[in-house]
Amino acid sequence: MRIVLSLGGSILAKNLDSDRFLKYAKALRDISKKHTLLVVTGGGEAARDYIGAARAIGADEVTCDYIGIEITRLNARLLIAALGPDAYPEIPSNYLEASKAMTSGKIVVMGGVTPGQTTDAVAAILAEYLRADLLTIATSIDGVYSSDPNCDPSAVKFDKISPEKLISIVMAIEMKAGSKSPVDPVAAKIIERCKLDALVMDARNPDLLLEVMGGETARKSPLSCGTWITAKK
Amino acid sequence: MRIVLSLGGSILAKNLDSDRFLKYAKALRDISKKHTLLVVTGGGEAARDYIGAARAIGADEVTCDYIGIEITRLNARLLIAALGPDAYPEIPSNYLEASKAMTSGKIVVMGGVTPGQTTDAVAAILAEYLRADLLTIATSIDGVYSSDPNCDPSAVKFDKISPEKLISIVMAIEMKAGSKSPVDPVAAKIIERCKLDALVMDARNPDLLLEVMGGETARKSPLSCGTWITAKK
Amino acid sequence: MRIVLSLGGSILAKNLDSDRFLKYAKALRDISKKHTLLVVTGGGEAARDYIGAARAIGADEVTCDYIGIEITRLNARLLIAALGPDAYPEIPSNYLEASKAMTSGKIVVMGGVTPGQTTDAVAAILAEYLRADLLTIATSIDGVYSSDPNCDPSAVKFDKISPEKLISIVMAIEMKAGSKSPVDPVAAKIIERCKLDALVMDARNPDLLLEVMGGETARKSPLSCGTWITAKK
Amino acid sequence: MRIVLSLGGSILAKNLDSDRFLKYAKALRDISKKHTLLVVTGGGEAARDYIGAARAIGADEVTCDYIGIEITRLNARLLIAALGPDAYPEIPSNYLEASKAMTSGKIVVMGGVTPGQTTDAVAAILAEYLRADLLTIATSIDGVYSSDPNCDPSAVKFDKISPEKLISIVMAIEMKAGSKSPVDPVAAKIIERCKLDALVMDARNPDLLLEVMGGETARKSPLSCGTWITAKK
Amino acid sequence: MRIVLSLGGSILAKNLDSDRFLKYAKALRDISKKHTLLVVTGGGEAARDYIGAARAIGADEVTCDYIGIEITRLNARLLIAALGPDAYPEIPSNYLEASKAMTSGKIVVMGGVTPGQTTDAVAAILAEYLRADLLTIATSIDGVYSSDPNCDPSAVKFDKISPEKLISIVMAIEMKAGSKSPVDPVAAKIIERCKLDALVMDARNPDLLLEVMGGETARKSPLSCGTWITAKK
Amino acid sequence: MRIVLSLGGSILAKNLDSDRFLKYAKALRDISKKHTLLVVTGGGEAARDYIGAARAIGADEVTCDYIGIEITRLNARLLIAALGPDAYPEIPSNYLEASKAMTSGKIVVMGGVTPGQTTDAVAAILAEYLRADLLTIATSIDGVYSSDPNCDPSAVKFDKISPEKLISIVMAIEMKAGSKSPVDPVAAKIIERCKLDALVMDARNPDLLLEVMGGETARKSPLSCGTWITAKK
Repeated sequence: MRIVLSLGGSILAKNLDSDRFLKYAKALRDISKKHTLLVVTGGGEAARDYIGAARAIGADEVTCDYIGIEITRLNARLLIAALGPDAYPEIPSNYLEASKAMTSGKIVVMGGVTPGQTTDAVAAILAEYLRADLLTIATSIDGVYSSDPNCDPSAVKFDKISPEKLISIVMAIEMKAGSKSPVDPVAAKIIERCKLDALVMDARNPDLLLEVMGGETARKSPLSCGTWITAKK
Repeated sequence: MRIVLSLGGSILAKNLDSDRFLKYAKALRDISKKHTLLVVTGGGEAARDYIGAARAIGADEVTCDYIGIEITRLNARLLIAALGPDAYPEIPSNYLEASKAMTSGKIVVMGGVTPGQTTDAVAAILAEYLRADLLTIATSIDGVYSSDPNCDPSAVKFDKISPEKLISIVMAIEMKAGSKSPVDPVAAKIIERCKLDALVMDARNPDLLLEVMGGETARKSPLSCGTWITAKK
Repeated sequence: MRIVLSLGGSILAKNLDSDRFLKYAKALRDISKKHTLLVVTGGGEAARDYIGAARAIGADEVTCDYIGIEITRLNARLLIAALGPDAYPEIPSNYLEASKAMTSGKIVVMGGVTPGQTTDAVAAILAEYLRADLLTIATSIDGVYSSDPNCDPSAVKFDKISPEKLISIVMAIEMKAGSKSPVDPVAAKIIERCKLDALVMDARNPDLLLEVMGGETARKSPLSCGTWITAKK
Repeated sequence: MRIVLSLGGSILAKNLDSDRFLKYAKALRDISKKHTLLVVTGGGEAARDYIGAARAIGADEVTCDYIGIEITRLNARLLIAALGPDAYPEIPSNYLEASKAMTSGKIVVMGGVTPGQTTDAVAAILAEYLRADLLTIATSIDGVYSSDPNCDPSAVKFDKISPEKLISIVMAIEMKAGSKSPVDPVAAKIIERCKLDALVMDARNPDLLLEVMGGETARKSPLSCGTWITAKK
Repeated sequence: MRIVLSLGGSILAKNLDSDRFLKYAKALRDISKKHTLLVVTGGGEAARDYIGAARAIGADEVTCDYIGIEITRLNARLLIAALGPDAYPEIPSNYLEASKAMTSGKIVVMGGVTPGQTTDAVAAILAEYLRADLLTIATSIDGVYSSDPNCDPSAVKFDKISPEKLISIVMAIEMKAGSKSPVDPVAAKIIERCKLDALVMDARNPDLLLEVMGGETARKSPLSCGTWITAKK
Repeated sequence: MRIVLSLGGSILAKNLDSDRFLKYAKALRDISKKHTLLVVTGGGEAARDYIGAARAIGADEVTCDYIGIEITRLNARLLIAALGPDAYPEIPSNYLEASKAMTSGKIVVMGGVTPGQTTDAVAAILAEYLRADLLTIATSIDGVYSSDPNCDPSAVKFDKISPEKLISIVMAIEMKAGSKSPVDPVAAKIIERCKLDALVMDARNPDLLLEVMGGETARKSPLSCGTWITAKK
């Protein structure tokens, strides 16, 4: 299978702990024995520190996005270092470069691409472009809920959901100015438009990544640690 | 004032009519006497033809986006030709390049930037990055309605609207898988997040552009031919 | 054998018919089973439409060339989409990039390179650079004539011709200001200087491409549907 | 006036004599007081040495062209050094970059652009693109002759000639495989197609450049040291 | 005067304190009223954190250098944000780009350029390339000592020193494997080779920068807070 | 083994003798049968000619460095031509590109990278980045001496030396302003910091390269024609 993995900065780069990078690298190396793998790394704490400083200085939001992209790329470089010769040596900076890098057969690692696009959106676009069999959004929450669980105690987690349902949940959350859904609206739109199979999962523990994606079929269902998004019955 | 104008391909490049290009160029040249101007051109018919062929061939949606971007850039080049020495000679391909080009004092014209971002989103990002006083979305519809007027005969046009209200309208329309709102959700998010002053207007007639944006303050309100989006009372 | 094919836009992109693209892709895929293949796509109708609009707007000829190059690249992208995984995913934009792309073993597809060079000239330069065994100019005419058959009813088609003879025919036609020879003068010069084996053929029917180039030796002679240009006796 | 000058490497870079560079720089600086100036430098001896070595090694002609381009750019860099702050600091590598550089108001200096195009052709393309008033080809011969004076003792030099006449002379010389006309055929074609005013002159003496181009109108006619090519009566 | 300033990351980006950035920006803005200014920003703490993580992961030293360069560029972007419209909007990534950016008349800010070159070396190369009147190395130590003051209590600070003397001090310190001199050896070599006027100063307090460089001549001598390096008597 | 070879321009490009290029190419091709090989070419005579002209014209030292880099790249191109299909077709222009090129399995050839870095320093950085087993500096002198043999008749050549010893010798020579050590100080620093195994050897005779590096282990010790630098006992 061909898998695109959006690996959240908050779980990968927590405290810039080298051990965490090495553990994720180990899990990815094992997954790559069965599957072709492209990883999009997020920003995490360093991104928040730098962006916080930028805002305090008076920077516009696009400059903040550029700073965030640089941090995602720094995290990508650390992950490449941890993967050693199993990783493609360069960080693609756009979709065409990613596509070329994939012909190497190595694990390709990249960060953000352009202001106005989250790394989740980047991963979804790549999943469509590379015709991936699976898009995994690895983060610190355990799936998609019927509403924002932080505000609504009656929110229910889904084990499995259709792309259309995802769209309606995401947009309902986004309707409130300033609030944020677990899946980026651009990513959700692409999942729906392209009928991508996607997985939103809690991957704070790197072993869980391997457990869920390490098998031949790279998925188990129903999924207790996340939500499957699929147009298939 | 500093103005970013998203100029729809359907109104600019209709039938690739050279006369239309020259008329829009004339209007823009007049507006630029009072204001600093960056124009983002859309795709229009040629984009639809090429993307239609690409889909029939079996291309993925990201390839279609790349094709669309090329067409927006062809339209940008034609508009630059029509503007002659008043235009910056090169088409910026990203936000940083646009920012550098703006130091020339000339009218800067560009097209799309990356798959997954409409030219309206590009224009909104540029408006924030360049700290523009106004974002104008010039299209073939006359503003923002309470719901999709094609589906709902009771839809009411707004003369003026707050960014929060825009978000709730846009996301409500986008909740239905496959449907499209008059303002791109990414653009709407940016307008809301950055408190941009924006204008959605029917600009099928180039003279209307000049009429609305040619004055010192570049706006009249209430606006019969469009909708003002502003956080100001 | 290593083959460089200049595939005219007028035959490839006629009416942007997706079926034609798919048929040429099929023929090329079959040829690539026996030979290494680089394809240079021409512009065709869309190029003429856009360039016509540009001239009407008052654009200079170099801008028109840039527009033409963009269209050749759009056609290249459609052909890449039609070839799917058999094509190299990126369009080289110059000779060095083409040379690198050829190390992938895939069918490489590209368009124009620079103003002042036709896609036939690009293909001839590539044939020399990649030390190709054959340069095929696939177009809508069936070979090289002793003079321009549109003006001279006594013009005779050649089945086979020497590079020196080609030069004298091409330059004689080009002597008349404004007239155009079947082979671009730059391409003719390169064919002569580098002693390239070249073939000018009518390839309006994709099957004919396969018939002529699909065999082990990739040529039959004498050739009823085209003209062989060769320094060999 | 806006002038594009093709400055032959054989006259500029003879023996890599720093004095010659400084003298040409002085002449160009004086000319630039009256006119806007873009200079395209040729290769000269070093190009011939390197290309000779490359051929002896077995390099193809395109590699030789790439080597030649690098040498033209080295000569450009020396001329930029000689011009000091009057020159634009970077060497444009294509037509778009040249166009941007010209907005600086400084003397722009560049070399070759792509294999298959001589620096004379580059200068002609630039003259068209920048809508120059004059294209000067400064070389070691004193103009255009009715035939190749090296082969034909009855060859007659022209003081003034039409673009159509130029085409017929150039192509007649080029008809003989291996022979070379004083004006590159691509340059001749562009001169004819775009109705450029051009001047082919002997500029082995830098003072002559200033004498011919230093006045308000930048030309004297009839010209004893060269040939005027013009569509004007 | 034209000044190149190497602004150490440890003093600029300490704790990513937005206030510090704004204070340095204010001082630079004031200096730029009298002088033309290019600033090279160093890495500081974030660089150390990221490079520490990279080493712990097992990254090679060149990868660590690339990471350090990215952090210097992030600091450059924050300083550009703090300078607002007084700064050139883009970060040059090499010397040619810096040279072009300087034609804008704005304060140019950049970071590291290539592995194996410290930002002090970058600043020295730029000072030579731009023919700057002064190279200032602003850091947390108050000048050049006769030997390493951390190891040798008898080390004496110089108020003024010749480039030759600098070389002999720097290389004597560098002779001990692993030890580091206050001025990078590459920077020292360039200062000596090109006879640059340089200043090594304690600039932990931004006001001191303005005090030393804000005057017409941009220097006071002898200098209590730093060391002048000059070939002049 | 993975070997990075710094091949001095003075020995490779002497008189631009095509025969020498072909002989070095033959030796490298033979070495590459046992080892993975990256070659960094120096400048040599042409560099000295061009740089001499540049200095006479009044160019700054950074411009001279840029010119030198271009010449090293011309020499690289000639060597690539001599190696034919055994060489990677493009010249990497930085370390990341070199790293990507090495995935091709071909002999990679490149020149200088940036002003302020000699090709020896480039080779050392590459040896660290690519984790090479050996860095060979092939030049016209037969190793490292205890002091500069041109000034000091009592200078003694070392067969083997530690990186720490190398540093102390190099810096002692560099202490004298204007003098130059056999190993560039930046290269020496990297050799010491990264504990690289390095070899400085007289390779005026291409056969010697093969003799020393052509075996399985690529080294014989003690070495009469050069000096081994190693941290190993």
